[in-house]
Amino acid sequence: MRLRKVANAKEKLLQSPDLVFLEPQDHKGKWHQLFKNENSIHIEVGMGKGSFITGMAKQHPDINFIGIEVVESVILRAVEKLKEEPLTNVILMCIDASMLTSVFEDGEIDRVYLNFSDPWPKSRHDKRRLTHHNFLKIFNQILIKNGEIHFKTDNQNLFEYSLISMSQFNMLLKYVSLDLHNSDFEGNVMTEYEERFHGLGQRIYRLEAQFR
Amino acid sequence: MRLRKVANAKEKLLQSPDLVFLEPQDHKGKWHQLFKNENSIHIEVGMGKGSFITGMAKQHPDINFIGIEVVESVILRAVEKLKEEPLTNVILMCIDASMLTSVFEDGEIDRVYLNFSDPWPKSRHDKRRLTHHNFLKIFNQILIKNGEIHFKTDNQNLFEYSLISMSQFNMLLKYVSLDLHNSDFEGNVMTEYEERFHGLGQRIYRLEAQFR
Repeated sequence: MRLRKVANAKEKLLQSPDLVFLEPQDHKGKWHQLFKNENSIHIEVGMGKGSFITGMAKQHPDINFIGIEVVESVILRAVEKLKEEPLTNVILMCIDASMLTSVFEDGEIDRVYLNFSDPWPKSRHDKRRLTHHNFLKIFNQILIKNGEIHFKTDNQNLFEYSLISMSQFNMLLKYVSLDLHNSDFEGNVMTEYEERFHGLGQRIYRLEAQFR
Repeated sequence: MRLRKVANAKEKLLQSPDLVFLEPQDHKGKWHQLFKNENSIHIEVGMGKGSFITGMAKQHPDINFIGIEVVESVILRAVEKLKEEPLTNVILMCIDASMLTSVFEDGEIDRVYLNFSDPWPKSRHDKRRLTHHNFLKIFNQILIKNGEIHFKTDNQNLFEYSLISMSQFNMLLKYVSLDLHNSDFEGNVMTEYEERFHGLGQRIYRLEAQFR
């Protein structure tokens, strides 16, 4: 994602402590208390500017959403959006995906969304891909039993890699579309990337996979 | 496949008893004896006119190939091709895929190829798709332990269906290409269909999946 560097991004994030958590470890195991309900919790890892998570939160008021993004100047855009149009079922946190087990208790999360994750095309960087074995292990730990990952991307190689990686992890494929916008899938909420790449005529790939 | 009906196809096939087996049940468990070696046996289920199996047999003289096709007038084209250019490591048989366990002993086969199988697009016909659970069960029975299916198609819906069906059967995906002819896969042998559809600019999908 190309974005102008935002000056003092961290200071600006600190001004919204109820919306964006910079040290979310303190709430490990207590996220339902924070939302003040027992609704399911879905997280998006790598939320970018937040179009998907806010769109999903509006479409599903009975689900709690947590948007996760490591880049402060990016998450700031989502904060600004949520300040204009507050939603009680969304919070954000600024952490790296490798930190998730420090932030969530085992089984605390009901679903993980991965949207247009960085493909890290060089094979020597495969460990950085969010569908690498190491990250699947983390997601499996924080998810409920038989929890699901919902993943979409325009990157063909990342999608191929992810199908194989998830199969090696013994996950069950429940849904696959090799051309999401020409499929009968309903309720799709587009990300910023998706609007752009779909607009350019790129195919969008999507899958749902369940741990077993 | 659209083909002119060949008159007396069966009679013509009967003239090549060493090449095409109309009642292959008699050789169950004895195919290595027939090939007079202990080389691996690969079968193609739905071989059409035989371009793939003859191309593979030339490329891999140390593997035995068996082409299987239920339509007599179609398999006749492959017979004619093999009469012009004989290959000692190819035989053909004219049976329905549901008959495979009557023809092969458990574990007698080393690999199954499925190429451009009939997609049977209506969901009420899903049991006829060669990647349906019922056929996977048959392939698993006649294949060696950890045997593989290598599958390619231009049909997006069939490929999506097959990924899910194989995952439900707990198969391990070892290779996936969502655009075979723009991938780095080497040694591809084209089928008649593939030449035609690739020529029309259609994407070809390919996977390798292993029973576990």
